[in-house]
Amino acid sequence: MFRFFVTSNNISADSIMLSAEDSKHIRTLRLRPDEQFIVCDGNSTDYVCKLAESSGFASARIVSSSKSLTEPTVLCRVFIAYQKGDRLDYAVQKSVELGVHDIVLFESERCVAVPHDIPKKVSRLQRIALETAKLCNRGIVPEVSSIGDFEAAINEAVSSSGITLFFYESEDQLHIKDVLQRHFTHEEDKNARDTQNANNVSIITGPEGGFEPSEVELARSKGIPIVSLGARILRSETAPVVALAAIMYQSGNM
Amino acid sequence: MFRFFVTSNNISADSIMLSAEDSKHIRTLRLRPDEQFIVCDGNSTDYVCKLAESSGFASARIVSSSKSLTEPTVLCRVFIAYQKGDRLDYAVQKSVELGVHDIVLFESERCVAVPHDIPKKVSRLQRIALETAKLCNRGIVPEVSSIGDFEAAINEAVSSSGITLFFYESEDQLHIKDVLQRHFTHEEDKNARDTQNANNVSIITGPEGGFEPSEVELARSKGIPIVSLGARILRSETAPVVALAAIMYQSGNM
Repeated sequence: MFRFFVTSNNISADSIMLSAEDSKHIRTLRLRPDEQFIVCDGNSTDYVCKLAESSGFASARIVSSSKSLTEPTVLCRVFIAYQKGDRLDYAVQKSVELGVHDIVLFESERCVAVPHDIPKKVSRLQRIALETAKLCNRGIVPEVSSIGDFEAAINEAVSSSGITLFFYESEDQLHIKDVLQRHFTHEEDKNARDTQNANNVSIITGPEGGFEPSEVELARSKGIPIVSLGARILRSETAPVVALAAIMYQSGNM
Repeated sequence: MFRFFVTSNNISADSIMLSAEDSKHIRTLRLRPDEQFIVCDGNSTDYVCKLAESSGFASARIVSSSKSLTEPTVLCRVFIAYQKGDRLDYAVQKSVELGVHDIVLFESERCVAVPHDIPKKVSRLQRIALETAKLCNRGIVPEVSSIGDFEAAINEAVSSSGITLFFYESEDQLHIKDVLQRHFTHEEDKNARDTQNANNVSIITGPEGGFEPSEVELARSKGIPIVSLGARILRSETAPVVALAAIMYQSGNM
């Protein structure tokens, strides 16, 4: 079934008004009166609706509502360095498919392609996140934002509750499985006493050229574990996706 | 360090001759005499070499050799249905990064884009596999091939030793973690008695429109478990990559 997102302002007790863009899309799709689709409030509630009005701002009657069943129980934030070409498009699309909560872009020493117009870049990636969220039935639209330099990203990551993992291709001792197994098993042992903490994971991945050793040391000095994703070198846009897959797998969200 | 692949024919006791294409690449890179690089025989042996001759067919003196350390202990075959646009490019590139052994393309009922010239398509994807293998330090170049229709693919998958997993987006009971945990734990229990069998995993993933129910039933009738990759719908090119990540994670290869 088609899926649209609206802000909660657009939802009344029995009907929903769609955005200008989705209204246009509904006309392009030639949906007929009473045809059913799903509208999500972006806050994990899905409404099964029937099309009421398709001209102007389209509107729909609410048939039923339910909690969205696709959101993972783990809240993952991905901090990702700017990258060239369509690498970020790819990383954002796949991260949304895998269940990321939000994506934060930052500038790192070896970034070869920091966009001139960062708000425009963020807006383009937010659009990719929205389109992907529709197609893979997400209950939220993951937010894409930018935060400035490496240190700002690190500080934001450690200030989040839960654990932060820093992925570095030269690390060969501490593997992601060691960290995630210990984390999720330990948290189960605590009998979900501190669920909020257990279920928040932030990950930090670098640009094409990798991180500078000084950046790795800064992360380490903040107490962030430096973690390997295995012996094979992953491309910069692949690393966050593989890390997310491992987190979803280990935490029972796959 | 730069990395090149050669066939074993090109390796003598103390020197290696590079391919015409790599010879040209070496000149483009302006590598100097005695500059070091790695040549891999595509069979998990890496040779550290020094450039001897860069004109014509370039040649290199062998400094040392060692077993490639990047090949996973699990042998994964990916059976993937034809897909539109650059989706297969993406699936092949990421699968090679993640450690796939070989990739087999097949035609499925809902394929919207079976190439007119299949050998050309396979050759293009083989090239992507080679370039990716160089960049992510693989010890082999995963082979890309095509096998015909769905039934041929299923038969080939079940004839491989080890387990076969069939991914289907409408499956919601059997999750990949259930299958992989059981498989790899069980195999550890057997004390690696049958390592060959334990370490072979074949996966089958569908085209954009998913599999036909009749195809799912055919797979089931051959005893292949039908498996879910989680509640969120993954795009057709993402599914094999996420499945590979889960296999590498569970089998201790990440």
